[in-house]
Amino acid sequence: MIPFNKPHLTGKETHYIYDAVNSGQLSGNGKYTRMCQEWMEHKFGFGKCLLTTSCTDALEMAAILLNIKEGDEVIMPSYTFVSTANAFVLRGAKIVFADSKPNHPGMDESKIEDLITSKTKAIVPVHYAGVACDMDLIMEVAQKHKLFVVEDAAQAIDSYFINKRGEKKALGTIGHLAAFSFHETKNIISGEGGMLAINDAQFYDRAEIIWEKGTNRSAFFKGEVDKYGWVDVGSSFLPSEMVAAFLFAQLESLEGIQARRTQIWYTYQNKLAHWCRSNNIKLPRVPEYATNNAHMFYLVCESKKQRSQLIQYLKDHDVLSVFHYLSLHKSEFYQNKHDGRALMECDRYADTLVRLPLYFDLLEEEQNLIVKAINSFSFE
Amino acid sequence: MIPFNKPHLTGKETHYIYDAVNSGQLSGNGKYTRMCQEWMEHKFGFGKCLLTTSCTDALEMAAILLNIKEGDEVIMPSYTFVSTANAFVLRGAKIVFADSKPNHPGMDESKIEDLITSKTKAIVPVHYAGVACDMDLIMEVAQKHKLFVVEDAAQAIDSYFINKRGEKKALGTIGHLAAFSFHETKNIISGEGGMLAINDAQFYDRAEIIWEKGTNRSAFFKGEVDKYGWVDVGSSFLPSEMVAAFLFAQLESLEGIQARRTQIWYTYQNKLAHWCRSNNIKLPRVPEYATNNAHMFYLVCESKKQRSQLIQYLKDHDVLSVFHYLSLHKSEFYQNKHDGRALMECDRYADTLVRLPLYFDLLEEEQNLIVKAINSFSFE
Repeated sequence: MIPFNKPHLTGKETHYIYDAVNSGQLSGNGKYTRMCQEWMEHKFGFGKCLLTTSCTDALEMAAILLNIKEGDEVIMPSYTFVSTANAFVLRGAKIVFADSKPNHPGMDESKIEDLITSKTKAIVPVHYAGVACDMDLIMEVAQKHKLFVVEDAAQAIDSYFINKRGEKKALGTIGHLAAFSFHETKNIISGEGGMLAINDAQFYDRAEIIWEKGTNRSAFFKGEVDKYGWVDVGSSFLPSEMVAAFLFAQLESLEGIQARRTQIWYTYQNKLAHWCRSNNIKLPRVPEYATNNAHMFYLVCESKKQRSQLIQYLKDHDVLSVFHYLSLHKSEFYQNKHDGRALMECDRYADTLVRLPLYFDLLEEEQNLIVKAINSFSFE
Repeated sequence: MIPFNKPHLTGKETHYIYDAVNSGQLSGNGKYTRMCQEWMEHKFGFGKCLLTTSCTDALEMAAILLNIKEGDEVIMPSYTFVSTANAFVLRGAKIVFADSKPNHPGMDESKIEDLITSKTKAIVPVHYAGVACDMDLIMEVAQKHKLFVVEDAAQAIDSYFINKRGEKKALGTIGHLAAFSFHETKNIISGEGGMLAINDAQFYDRAEIIWEKGTNRSAFFKGEVDKYGWVDVGSSFLPSEMVAAFLFAQLESLEGIQARRTQIWYTYQNKLAHWCRSNNIKLPRVPEYATNNAHMFYLVCESKKQRSQLIQYLKDHDVLSVFHYLSLHKSEFYQNKHDGRALMECDRYADTLVRLPLYFDLLEEEQNLIVKAINSFSFE
């Protein structure tokens, strides 16, 4: 059976974990945490980075930093993982869901402005499949209406947006805040893990406080205060040094990981192009303003029935393909809280999108087998 | 320099981490997570256990499970770590702080009933230094007023309460819910880490949902539902398998760890008894209804000045001793939210309690050096 995902090890993870374990600090905010944070700030140009135990936790930190409270509205796509919404719901926000684009599962940027009310506090674009949203458009709307932008960059490490001035900006450096995931299904992993990137300097100090359980412990260690205490709300957002040590090994191998994933991605695209055209199946689209970080390879079928056939057929040929997400606005939890607008594109992707296996250790012969199977498949 | 704490390794941690890493599942809720949970359910008799990324997160899960909301009141000691309070403040609760006991830093159980109002939802006893609160008294008051009890058992692994019927109950099995910590300063560690113990069966299913980001993913994997979706609020509370693997190695060595810590604890008690009597310094007290898990060895001085002298003297003799906690009701964050009651005992412990080094790898000669230093010390 070819699995849908297999976590990749560079070989250095256990070495660094062993080093962390033996250095005597296992709790968070130690050597490896700082090494990861500095590495990413330097590589991608984030204002400041703080590792978290998950992308969910990074989003929760963002919601706390923005002082989201009962009655505030937050605009985000419905076609996303539950955590995008939960992080803000936990603070009392009402989620205003935006539809996906006809030609891409990401949020339709052109529809955002119509959803803004006097209660809107933030826009949370999700860079679906690691492909940039049109951040020029989103930042313009946000600036005009004085809203904060939190990039949900869970899938978007090492992916870029080319702005209207032709500048190439790493995703997660454009919004006021951004959240990344290092869950085992991502390009760069630490089992469970995440990171908050902070680009708006007004949030630097408070982010450290919220990260350290609402205390000014970070300032204490920097010698800025002579004792530390409870100064704000907060949680234990920081991961163990073990997790950071694992992550650092992955970061050091970023280029190799990305090269192999990109190779797999383009092999799928090239070898499935003809079959997709013949069957009216859509390949992933990467707009001109975006780069491709090869996070995900997906196909969009014409119907739910077609997708079920394809998934079952692949399963019969020992290949695990998966679908996601269920529309959040139709979920058991939110359907009665949603304002009732139909979000047709979102529902369509929920019914028709299928993801193919894509991971570093996918062998060439395995990918050939997958491609060959699909190319010999005809829908009923 | 003899440090205040040094994380102990049993030697098997990296072996199990390597196994987890190579088994291919690094995200949470895998083999090692289940092994840890089952081990603790079996050993201590909790209804159900869920590993979390920290004790803070376990307390946050408890607050969500109890539907704590704006205006609810929660009773807890002021002499505790910020997370005890923050977890409930994040849900909108008002914290009603109870004072410590004259003869123990733990919450004065006899004062709880007077603090109950129609808005009170829960009591959160903290088993300070791993020493049980009088749980008979607390559970009686809670039952009478229909309140929930969340044991903050951060320091209380492998510690017991002997109830009025003479039954020995593990701490964390008595309240409706309980939160444990595996932070590197605890007896059993995983760097950062925690656990929610659930004893009231009404919370079993919802706890799994909240743990899994508000989805019914756990029920899906058990085959109870045919697809999983967003059904509730929640967060990513589950730790990586790496963290669980580390923890499992520690749990397997529980007896040896506890034996060594206990030995160190009683050596302090025996060898400092005379000096303490002569200087009117108080040794830790363990009531008859409690066992001693040797989490912490502390001394209570007569004044803040005395404590500062002792800490400085030990530092001059290459020994790091530390104090904690600052009274939460006087913190920058909560002083204006507190109802103004003086909590004299709490303030006294905040000023006078000092903790001595206590960890598995503290050498006999190191402890002798500490004891000898203290015994030759006279306050100015």
